[in-house]
Amino acid sequence: MDELKARIQAEGRNLGRGILKIDSLLNHQLDPGLMRRMGQNMANHFKELDLQIDRILTAEISGIAPALMTAAELDVPVVYARKKRPITMSGPIFMEVAPSHTKGGDVTLMVSSEFLHAGENILIVDDFLATGHTLMALARMVRDAQANLVGVGVVVEKTFEEGRNAMLAAGYDIPIYALAAITSMDGEDIEMG
Amino acid sequence: MDELKARIQAEGRNLGRGILKIDSLLNHQLDPGLMRRMGQNMANHFKELDLQIDRILTAEISGIAPALMTAAELDVPVVYARKKRPITMSGPIFMEVAPSHTKGGDVTLMVSSEFLHAGENILIVDDFLATGHTLMALARMVRDAQANLVGVGVVVEKTFEEGRNAMLAAGYDIPIYALAAITSMDGEDIEMG
Repeated sequence: MDELKARIQAEGRNLGRGILKIDSLLNHQLDPGLMRRMGQNMANHFKELDLQIDRILTAEISGIAPALMTAAELDVPVVYARKKRPITMSGPIFMEVAPSHTKGGDVTLMVSSEFLHAGENILIVDDFLATGHTLMALARMVRDAQANLVGVGVVVEKTFEEGRNAMLAAGYDIPIYALAAITSMDGEDIEMG
Repeated sequence: MDELKARIQAEGRNLGRGILKIDSLLNHQLDPGLMRRMGQNMANHFKELDLQIDRILTAEISGIAPALMTAAELDVPVVYARKKRPITMSGPIFMEVAPSHTKGGDVTLMVSSEFLHAGENILIVDDFLATGHTLMALARMVRDAQANLVGVGVVVEKTFEEGRNAMLAAGYDIPIYALAAITSMDGEDIEMG
């Protein structure tokens, strides 16, 4: 998505160790026009694959905006995995743990069984595909719920972290789509494919 | 907003101690159609007041969706206050602490000074107006930034927690708008105004 790539080149900062700061458009500030066009682009890609998507699954926090805008185009509900159990979360939950490269330590992801149903076709949407650990934790929830994971869409893929290959090696042989792919963050540059 | 009130009556649960569970439409699952109509309703209300809004300020996590959909209608950026400092947040920040009734303890709110500018007209949008503590912490950030707080919009106001009066008493004499007002959660009921 050219608009997104141009914004990342203009506003993104390479903080080293593979960490990309794009706070001005995804992780702190949101540009609703760009976010809507990202959702449209993502939705159009998966519509063309004719996947009969029933629901989008994402993870708080930065996944919410792109997931919501994609869901608005597909007219399906979103559920966002919580990382801390809120006081309102009662009843059975799906819970998975993923190691976090950027946060250090582990991240726990929780989804109430109310909002993930057997037989549904699930599209996972998140902000980043890096190592793939968070996405695979979400994917395990989908499998646990006996739902069908039909695709993964992300705003930014850091291809040099090999998450796409890790997902394939783990058996997730599904369409994976990224709006922008960053191929290298060596030195101070941000190189895009 | 009648549609929202009907959804709260149908799907909401009174968990006691003033805690409202509306996970199916705001705090865990999102209905993009409803969320878009909520954003339109909120935006239309403030458009009629002709406030020349430059930016929406909200707080992660559940404020993001209604703030984004309102911002999409007003065509202004959103900034969401972070509750944990992310690795990408560098440079000066505005920081405020608010006591949290539902979470227990204090909540820290952080906004990078990159995304809150002197002289801007700021609309705060959040999921709940209860005691008003979170909203007033956001309002203090706006003041700290020498920006102008021009209004507050929330999805649900729990009028019995008196947050609106607390804000007025604290000197925030601004338009406050709620899409739905809950007047009592005594017993097991959810009474709406």
